Formats: sequence, structure tokens, C-alpha cells
Amino acid sequence: MQQIVDFVLELDKLKGITRKTRPLGLDRYENSAEHSWQIALLAASLAHYAEEPIDLDRVIGMLLVHDIGEIDAGDVMVYADSNRQERQSAEAAAVTRIFGLLPEEQAARFLALWQEFDEGGTPEARFAHAADRAMPVLLNLANGGQSWLENGIRHEQVVARVAPPIRAGCPALWEYLETRLEEEKRNGWFGAE
Amino acid sequence: MQQIVDFVLELDKLKGITRKTRPLGLDRYENSAEHSWQIALLAASLAHYAEEPIDLDRVIGMLLVHDIGEIDAGDVMVYADSNRQERQSAEAAAVTRIFGLLPEEQAARFLALWQEFDEGGTPEARFAHAADRAMPVLLNLANGGQSWLENGIRHEQVVARVAPPIRAGCPALWEYLETRLEEEKRNGWFGAE
Repeated sequence: MQQIVDFVLELDKLKGITRKTRPLGLDRYENSAEHSWQIALLAASLAHYAEEPIDLDRVIGMLLVHDIGEIDAGDVMVYADSNRQERQSAEAAAVTRIFGLLPEEQAARFLALWQEFDEGGTPEARFAHAADRAMPVLLNLANGGQSWLENGIRHEQVVARVAPPIRAGCPALWEYLETRLEEEKRNGWFGAE
Repeated sequence: MQQIVDFVLELDKLKGITRKTRPLGLDRYENSAEHSWQIALLAASLAHYAEEPIDLDRVIGMLLVHDIGEIDAGDVMVYADSNRQERQSAEAAAVTRIFGLLPEEQAARFLALWQEFDEGGTPEARFAHAADRAMPVLLNLANGGQSWLENGIRHEQVVARVAPPIRAGCPALWEYLETRLEEEKRNGWFGAE
């Protein structure tokens, strides 16, 4: 029992890992714990739009654990391209440490979910990636392009980065977003070309 | 698709509903969105300690939606006894409104999870309640009794309020907590008797 308690208290640190988007109507930045909760519910709401039949429970499991590596490695905006491989190793080391706080069986279960997401090779992982990538776009589209403007992210960068994973996991969601992104490009909600 | 987007953006408001506990090492109060994420993982870690065999996926579903009614009704500390029934009606009205943003099938699925938790009649709901009630206790036990001291909550109030649901859903967890609560009573981590 103490192992489980140590693990869940270690998880508390994800509440202090901030992202680049702000919750609607709040001044602060969003953290990776509340983000994980929101995309689990986005995935649950969207499940019938998945590109292939999926096991939703595994998708939710992946989304709940996918950011835990940030406890040691921090959050980096999806548009920061450098050191992607180094970062992936750092997150893998982090989850090995953190899941390792648990009894072996639970540790293995969480690690398998994390790895499935990380590798992105299953329909469930692709759908989970679509939800993860779509959420900050949806927030920006409701927030005047907040994190795109604050970080000088251009419309074409957004499309280049999020279209492939969202289209692969949830084509209907990409169709919706493509139109909305085009509309807000005209409204100047992106960094300058 | 627009219905799903409206729903998930409405969920954003739960990030602004604050509870009485503070995340470890942070100055601010915890919000109900990140709390929901953490207890879903607590439940997943604890599943083999459940009092009866459970369908963990339904437990996780319940925990992800159980606080959504607070978007309209706010969070009230578990030790605030007054108006419990009024509050329950307010939360029920809130989830009817918020899940009602979704297409009928998803709305019905989320509402069924919320009601199962609210009624507390199944092994899954009892286990989910145990995780929900235990988490702020675990945080306080790691945080010098922070919210108990700030709100003048006595040791006997904690035991009276959390022992029955935690024992009913996850007896091994209550056994662990009972000893820890007794230890910290001696350290003065509670409101005065």
C-alpha cells in the first residue's frame, strides 16, 4: 500500500507542470494533469468518430498516463522541434522511475500503456494522439489564438504539425479543425508569416 | 462535431473550480479537473485491493465525470454538512445541462456513469467513492494536515466522514489510513478538539 501511496503522491507533481495554453477565462497556464483529464473526456465523447474501431478504455488509460514523463522532463510545446529524441529518452527514463514506485504488476500495466502511446502504432494510440493534439487547437480556437500569438506560431506550422496525427486518428475531427483554422487565419489569430 | 467541441470547452470550467487542498509544494489550491485525473490513477493503481471484483474501466469513467456538476454548483468541502440535498439537486441539474450539450447517446452514457457514482450502489461506485475520499486525506497526510488545519477540521470529523466510504470500497486502504491518521493526530495536524 505504501508503494501505491508514494506513486500517487509523486503524480501530484504533474499539477505543477505548465503548458502554453491558458484555460478559458483564467489568467494562468494550464497544467498537464488537468489537460490529461480533459483529453480523456474528449476521447470518450469522440469515440464513434475514430478512424478504426477502438477499445476506448485503453485509449483513456493511455491519455491518463501519457504526460507523466513530464514530471522529470517538463513540458515542451509541440512546435519546439529541437532535441526531440533526447526528450523522448528523458521521458522514457522518467516513467521508468515513476511507474517503478509501484508493485511490479501495476508498473508493467502503466508502462505498457505509456509505450503504446509513445510508439503510436495501434488504432488506439493513433486516436489518443488525435485527441491530445486537437485539444490545444480547440482551446486556441476558443481563445483568440492565445498560445499561437504568444509564441509566434504560424498557421502553416499548426497545420503541418497537427494535421497528420489528427487525420490519422480521427479524420472527422481534422475536417472540422481545418475549416476553423482557415477562418481564424483570416482573423489574424496566428504568428506573422 | 460542434456539439462535442462545445461540451469539451464547457469542461474547461472545471479547471477553475478550486478545492480546499493544495498540491504538494504549490501555493495555490487544487482544482477539480486535476483532482479527477489523479483519483482515476489512484483507482487504477489500487484496483486489486477493491472489496469486491470490479470493472475498473467503469470506475475510471465515473471518476472522470463525477465532479462535472461542480461547474455550476461549485466545490464544497466534504465536512460542510448543511444543504446536502439541495446541493445534490444542483449538481444533478448541472450535469443534465452539461451532458445535454452532447449528442444523445454520449450524453446518456456519461449521465449513467455520473448517476451510478451518485447513487453509490454498485461495487464500482463504492470503490470510486473510496478513491475520491482517500485522495485529500493522502494529500493532507503528506502536507502537514494543511486543509484540516486551515479549516479547523478535527481528527474525529475526518474519521467519521471518510472511514465508512473508504472501508466499504477498499478496506485495505482504510486500514493504512487509520494508522496514519492516528500518528498525525499525535503531531497536531488537525483542528483543535
